[in-house]
Amino acid sequence: MKVVLTEPRFLKDSINILSELVSDVSIKFDSDKLEIVAMDPANVAMVVFRLLSSSFVEYNVEGVETISISLASLKQVLGRARPSDSITLELDNDKNRLNVKLRGESVRDFNLGLIDIQDNEQKVPELEFPVKVTMNSVSFNEAVEDMDIISDSIGFIADQNKLQVFASGTTSDARVEFGKTDETLITVGEEGEIKSKYSTEYLKKIIKGSKLSDVVNLQFGEDYPLQIEYKVTDRLQLFTILAPRVENK
Amino acid sequence: MKVVLTEPRFLKDSINILSELVSDVSIKFDSDKLEIVAMDPANVAMVVFRLLSSSFVEYNVEGVETISISLASLKQVLGRARPSDSITLELDNDKNRLNVKLRGESVRDFNLGLIDIQDNEQKVPELEFPVKVTMNSVSFNEAVEDMDIISDSIGFIADQNKLQVFASGTTSDARVEFGKTDETLITVGEEGEIKSKYSTEYLKKIIKGSKLSDVVNLQFGEDYPLQIEYKVTDRLQLFTILAPRVENK
Amino acid sequence: MKVVLTEPRFLKDSINILSELVSDVSIKFDSDKLEIVAMDPANVAMVVFRLLSSSFVEYNVEGVETISISLASLKQVLGRARPSDSITLELDNDKNRLNVKLRGESVRDFNLGLIDIQDNEQKVPELEFPVKVTMNSVSFNEAVEDMDIISDSIGFIADQNKLQVFASGTTSDARVEFGKTDETLITVGEEGEIKSKYSTEYLKKIIKGSKLSDVVNLQFGEDYPLQIEYKVTDRLQLFTILAPRVENK
Repeated sequence: MKVVLTEPRFLKDSINILSELVSDVSIKFDSDKLEIVAMDPANVAMVVFRLLSSSFVEYNVEGVETISISLASLKQVLGRARPSDSITLELDNDKNRLNVKLRGESVRDFNLGLIDIQDNEQKVPELEFPVKVTMNSVSFNEAVEDMDIISDSIGFIADQNKLQVFASGTTSDARVEFGKTDETLITVGEEGEIKSKYSTEYLKKIIKGSKLSDVVNLQFGEDYPLQIEYKVTDRLQLFTILAPRVENK
Repeated sequence: MKVVLTEPRFLKDSINILSELVSDVSIKFDSDKLEIVAMDPANVAMVVFRLLSSSFVEYNVEGVETISISLASLKQVLGRARPSDSITLELDNDKNRLNVKLRGESVRDFNLGLIDIQDNEQKVPELEFPVKVTMNSVSFNEAVEDMDIISDSIGFIADQNKLQVFASGTTSDARVEFGKTDETLITVGEEGEIKSKYSTEYLKKIIKGSKLSDVVNLQFGEDYPLQIEYKVTDRLQLFTILAPRVENK
Repeated sequence: MKVVLTEPRFLKDSINILSELVSDVSIKFDSDKLEIVAMDPANVAMVVFRLLSSSFVEYNVEGVETISISLASLKQVLGRARPSDSITLELDNDKNRLNVKLRGESVRDFNLGLIDIQDNEQKVPELEFPVKVTMNSVSFNEAVEDMDIISDSIGFIADQNKLQVFASGTTSDARVEFGKTDETLITVGEEGEIKSKYSTEYLKKIIKGSKLSDVVNLQFGEDYPLQIEYKVTDRLQLFTILAPRVENK
C-alpha cells in the first residue's frame, strides 16, 4: 500500500477534527477510498471519514488493507506538514509500521507503530431522517456558539418553513431562527414539527468540520440522532451521527 | 423599556471592562441615559458607567427603570454580537427577564434572567481632588505596565510641572516622568507636591478603559482616592474611583 | 560604566533566549564587549553570550566590571522596551544597582538590585569537535521540532556527505537528512561516521537563537558535547555547549 497526497490540508484538517472525538482508530484502504469509522469512547457520537482516491496523486492499494493507529500520533506528524509539502503514506513490509513521508525542501520520514484494536470494524447504522437541512456552515457554527452561553444541550425544531435552534438555562434562554432561503434548504416529512436535543459539548467539536466546507448538511428526527455532514466533491466526506438527549417526561 | 444600539462596540467594550471589577450590577435607565454604579466586592473600587441616550438609535424609557443582572452573562451575550449587528434591549412584560436581540443576517434572541440585589442604589461620593491630569491613555497604560514589573503598588507624585509615576520593590525600583505638554495637562492646587499610592492589580484592570478613548482624565489627592475617567463625547462616560494604599508610618 | 544601545532587539532577544536556560548570571563588561558565561542549574548546558562594543552607540567601560543580576528581572525590564527605544545601562555610584533607562517618547528609569553569585567566573572549556556543520537555522529548528514528536532525545549522525537527525520512540521513529549544498556545509574529520544524542528539551530552548541569525553553526563529536552557535557579524555571538546523552550499552 502506497498513497501520495499533494494537498495535505484535506487529510490534516480532517484528522484534527476526528481527533477531538476519537483516539485510536482503524483506517481501511480499499480501491476507491481511505475510510475511518469510529465511535467516541462514551458511545455518544460515531464519526465517518472518507477520503476518496481521487484526492491522491498516486493511489496504490491492492484489495483491502486495514491498519489501526493512534490518531494523536498521526495528528502530530501531519501537523508538521507545511501547506506545500506532499504526504506519502506507505505500509512497511512487516506491516507493523505506517511510514509517513513529508516531502518539501527536505524529506522527513516518520514511522508510526501500528496498534491492535479489538472489534476494528464499526458498522454505520442505517438511519432514516424525517428532517433534512442544508445551510451555511458558518451560520450553523454561530448558532451553536450562541446557545453554548446558555446551556449544555441545544434543541432543534424544524417545520416546513424554518429551523429553530434554541437553548434553555435555569434563568436564561436563547433562540435563533433560520427561514427557507436560496442558501437554506429545509425538507420535513409529513410528521409536522420535529424537535430534538443534543449535547452542546459534542456539537462544538463536530462543527469544526466547517473548516472543510462552507455548507453543512443536517439530518435529524424527533428524539432521534442528528447527522452532521461536511463534503468536498470528489475529495472527501466527513459526517458524525450524534445521539439525542432525551429528557425524562 | 426598549432601546436599540447600532454601534455595539460602546456597550460591549464597556461591559467587558466593568466585568473585570464587578459581577452583579443594577442598571438604571432614565430619560437621558443608562447608568451602572457599582462597588467591587473588596470595596476598593467604585465604577460608574453612563451610556447616553444619544448613543442609541431608538430610546424608549418611561420614567426610571432599574434592573439587576449578572454582568458575566450580559458580557457573554454581547460578546456574540458582530461589529455590524444592532443590539436591542427590552424588558419583558413580567419584568423578570431582559431580552437582548442581536440583529444581523439572522436575529438571535437571548432572554437573561434578572436577579435581586440588596442595596441596589449605590451613591457616587462627592470628592474634591487637588490634582487633575489629562494625558494620552496609552502612555498612562505603559506607565502602569512598567511599574507592574516592580511592585504591587504604584505611586503618583504631582507638582505644578510634572506627574511622576513610580514603584519600589525590595531590591528594585522604577520611575517615569510626564512633563506638561500640549497633550499632557497638569493642574495642582496650592498644596505643592501631592503624593499617593494605589493597587497595581486594580490599575491594570481599570486601564483597559483606554479601549474607549485616547485620552484619560486622572484626579487624585494626598493619600486620597484616584479617579480615572474615559469619555466619548455625546456617547459615554466610564470612571472608576480607586481607594489609596496608605502606608503605616 | 555606562553603555547605550539603539537597537534594543539584540540585547532583548538574547536575554530572552538565555533566560530559558539560566536564572542568575554574572555580566562582565570589558573594553570590547559585554559577556555572560553561565551553566544551567542541572549542569547540562553552558551558555556564552557576547555583545560586542561595536553594537553600542556609546560604550564607556574602564577596566573590567562584573555585576551579577537576576536574568528574569532584566528580561522583564527589557521586555518593556519598544523597538525604537534606546537603552542605557549604567552602574550607580554605590555599585549595588544597575540603572536601565528606556528612552523613547518618555524616559523610563529602572534600578535593578544586584545580587551575589558565588563562583561568578565560569570558564568556557576548550573542546575539539570532529564535526562542523553550517546550515539554515530555520531548517535546523524544524528538524528538532519534528523529532520532538517522537522522543525526548534527538540523535545526530554526520559523515562526509550528510547530516542525519533522528529520534526513536517505543513504537515510532523519525529521521530527516541534510545533504551537502551551497547552504549546508559539512566537514567531518577522518573518523568516518560520527554519532551522538542530546536532550530534546534543551535543544528546543537553544534553537530559539534562530531569532538572531538565519545561519546556525553546529559542532559535535561521538558521544561528545554539541556546540550550537548563532552569530551576527560585528554585533554578537551566542553559543551553547550541550552535554551528550550517552546510552548504556
